[in-house]
Amino acid sequence: MSSPPRIRPRPGSRRSARDRSEAAPPTLTCPTRQTLDRLADRWTVVLLDQLENGPRRFGQLRDAADGISEKMLTQTLRSLERDGFVTRRSDTAKVPQVWYLLTPLGRSVLEPLAAVRSWAHQNIDGIERSRLSFDAEPR
Amino acid sequence: MSSPPRIRPRPGSRRSARDRSEAAPPTLTCPTRQTLDRLADRWTVVLLDQLENGPRRFGQLRDAADGISEKMLTQTLRSLERDGFVTRRSDTAKVPQVWYLLTPLGRSVLEPLAAVRSWAHQNIDGIERSRLSFDAEPR
Repeated sequence: MSSPPRIRPRPGSRRSARDRSEAAPPTLTCPTRQTLDRLADRWTVVLLDQLENGPRRFGQLRDAADGISEKMLTQTLRSLERDGFVTRRSDTAKVPQVWYLLTPLGRSVLEPLAAVRSWAHQNIDGIERSRLSFDAEPR
Repeated sequence: MSSPPRIRPRPGSRRSARDRSEAAPPTLTCPTRQTLDRLADRWTVVLLDQLENGPRRFGQLRDAADGISEKMLTQTLRSLERDGFVTRRSDTAKVPQVWYLLTPLGRSVLEPLAAVRSWAHQNIDGIERSRLSFDAEPR
C-alpha cells in the first residue's frame, strides 16, 4: 500500500504534445478527416469533376450527375460553397443565369483527389480479391 | 405526331463508353468513392497511422485510438482485414499473441493519404474562414 500509484503514460502523449503546439486542430487527424468526409460525399467528386472543365449551370450539373435529385444537388452545391470549394456567378444576360465554378481552393483539392483516384483504380481489383477471399474463409 | 421521338443523349455517355472498356468499375468514380469511404471512416486513418510504425497488438491499438470501443476496434480491424489493408499474425510465445500489421496494399494507400493530409493541413484555415463568412451572409 506504500508504493505510489503507477502512472501509465497517456496513450499518444507524444502526439498530444505536438498538437498543443499547433493552433487549429483538436486532434492530429481532424483536418484530414474533415477533408476525407468532404471528398467521400456521394456527389462531391462528380461535381468537382464537372466543374474542373469550366463553369456549369444548375441544369448542366443535374444532367451530368445522373440520378441526383434537385434537392440533393442544391444541398451539395451549398455545402461546397460553404466550404469555399465552389462559388456562384451571375451573367449579365437579360434573364441572368447563375453559373457555378471552382474557387482556387476547390481547384487545389483536385490534386490530392487525383492521387486517391489513381491509387483506387490501380488497387480496386486487389481489394475485391481480398474481400472474396476473406468472405470465403470459415470463421 | 409523325416526327420520331427525340432521343436525348444519355448524360455522361462518353464516360459510359470508357467504362465499358474496363473490367470492374460500374461507374468512373466507384473505386474512388470506395477508397474515399474507406479512408473517411472515423478510425481508419488513426489505425493506419499506428500500423505504419510496425505491428501492433489489439490492446496497443485500443490505447492509441483514444476513445475507440473494443467493439468498434474489432469491427474496423475486420473491415481493414477484409479489404486487404491489414493482416494478422500470431507469434510463437507459449501464450500466442495476435499482431496486426499492414499489408503491402495497406502500406501503399499511405501515399495518397499523405497527399490528402498535407492538403488538409494547408487548407483547413481557408475552409474554416469560408464557413464563417458563408454563415454570416444574410440569405
